[in-house]
Amino acid sequence: VETALIGVDWGTSRLRGLRIGPTGELLETRDSTLGVALVQDRAFDVALHKLIGDWQTREGRAPILMCGMVGSRQGWHEVPYVPCPAGLADFLPHLKRVETACGPAHIIAGASTKDARGIHDVIRGEETQIFGIATSTGRQLAIAPGTHSKWARVENGRILGFQTYMTGEIYSLLRERSTLAWVMSSTAETSPVDGAFLLGVRRTREDPDLLRLLFSVRTCGLFDDLPSAALASYLSGLLIGSEIASGLRRRASGQITVIAPAALAYLYRLAMSDAGYSDVACIDATAAAALGFWRLWELSRQWEGL
Amino acid sequence: VETALIGVDWGTSRLRGLRIGPTGELLETRDSTLGVALVQDRAFDVALHKLIGDWQTREGRAPILMCGMVGSRQGWHEVPYVPCPAGLADFLPHLKRVETACGPAHIIAGASTKDARGIHDVIRGEETQIFGIATSTGRQLAIAPGTHSKWARVENGRILGFQTYMTGEIYSLLRERSTLAWVMSSTAETSPVDGAFLLGVRRTREDPDLLRLLFSVRTCGLFDDLPSAALASYLSGLLIGSEIASGLRRRASGQITVIAPAALAYLYRLAMSDAGYSDVACIDATAAAALGFWRLWELSRQWEGL
Repeated sequence: VETALIGVDWGTSRLRGLRIGPTGELLETRDSTLGVALVQDRAFDVALHKLIGDWQTREGRAPILMCGMVGSRQGWHEVPYVPCPAGLADFLPHLKRVETACGPAHIIAGASTKDARGIHDVIRGEETQIFGIATSTGRQLAIAPGTHSKWARVENGRILGFQTYMTGEIYSLLRERSTLAWVMSSTAETSPVDGAFLLGVRRTREDPDLLRLLFSVRTCGLFDDLPSAALASYLSGLLIGSEIASGLRRRASGQITVIAPAALAYLYRLAMSDAGYSDVACIDATAAAALGFWRLWELSRQWEGL
Repeated sequence: VETALIGVDWGTSRLRGLRIGPTGELLETRDSTLGVALVQDRAFDVALHKLIGDWQTREGRAPILMCGMVGSRQGWHEVPYVPCPAGLADFLPHLKRVETACGPAHIIAGASTKDARGIHDVIRGEETQIFGIATSTGRQLAIAPGTHSKWARVENGRILGFQTYMTGEIYSLLRERSTLAWVMSSTAETSPVDGAFLLGVRRTREDPDLLRLLFSVRTCGLFDDLPSAALASYLSGLLIGSEIASGLRRRASGQITVIAPAALAYLYRLAMSDAGYSDVACIDATAAAALGFWRLWELSRQWEGL
């Protein structure tokens, strides 16, 4: 099938190409570890061409849309944040054109928000996924878990505001580099334990003192309250539980959608169901990004074309 | 002056010797990085002899008391925890004698506690510092900040219970190994900024969502809300502020004492004063440990001698 649009989700630690067909269907994805942080000497064009160069043909070059840290100060070209509230159309005037060996490409801006106390927050990449699942009417809560989890309130297709939680990054640091790493079994990562995960979720729901509860990973091991193979799941439950307890305290009404790979989405649904939120939709992040790229592309054609 | 007692505070990452005189005065201290985690092939005796061997003479060998992780499973000899509530006398029957090249030594047990929800907590080393500052009557709150901060409630000289906060370890991980490290100036460590520290303290006092607030270290840098040289202090304020807000919520009435080096004690007093607690005493951790070793030694002589 002919390539109608190429989407590129270029984050700090990962580069992903999405080949999209004429009706917006996702035809193919390609992954590389050449995230923005790993590209040497600003060789972004070489990395991009290596990943998706053969998707372009002499007869016709598909348009390319890029999102993520590629638009940050450390990326290919800095694109200022679009302040929220913002709908997809608000991003069109800020598309930044860059010339590449694969043809012209456009970088999508990230979004920024500021809470009542003046604390700023930013997003780069997840806005495209969120616009992929946004409905034109009604309220939604979009959750994109990961290294930095994003919780976005969406209304009538516009992102009203969002919060970032450092859940995934703190998990990795504690799992791999902390004194807690010693007590956790190294096999735990491949076999999550629902009971231990939910114990962690419930403890942080009752008690927001995360700095204190984290030490209980160690004592649960010391006193055999949990088997060592379950301690990583318990840690995950403490962190995801803390994020979810905070996020649900702030939530607007409306449909909840988790944008994540199946294994991670399962944990978020499990924790939210335990808190009484059982109507939670899930979508893979790549599928959501493909929808977002396609919507922006369609909107741009109505507007003035890229 | 003659050596009457040698105290050894042997933690995970540090080994410290205390030479104590006939009236309990601290005569000399020696430090080494040979913490329990760094001792190879269980060569504890060699490390101890290297540190304090010359403090012993042929004419007379001073008794040696050791506390800390040296009594853990990874240490010289495992000594089971004494469950709280516990006074100093409760530790006497559990002193573990080990023979060393410097003469016989005794390892002091750590303490354990369990909260209303069944969550265990443990301490090894700080119990000796806490007994050093404990008064025979009245209520006290003893705070020993550090890699793992300990908050202990003391009544009539007995430790009723305590909590551990992973404040210092999480600070180091975020300061050195996280995506936040990129935005923090490397000079910040030597020059704490009180204003930025207090901003962090206040934000966590109003809002316990630490996982979310941590990301504001990055956005404060991105949006120039704080100079990059102040961001490490802001991070420190978020973490210490979170610990203090939690600890003060649980506190019993009574005198508050911070057991820490002067620079760290200054930050804890600043944060607690900002929360309305201005009557906070401070003592150096080594001075507190010397008092604790001496008290235990005196008590043991009344009892049956070591």
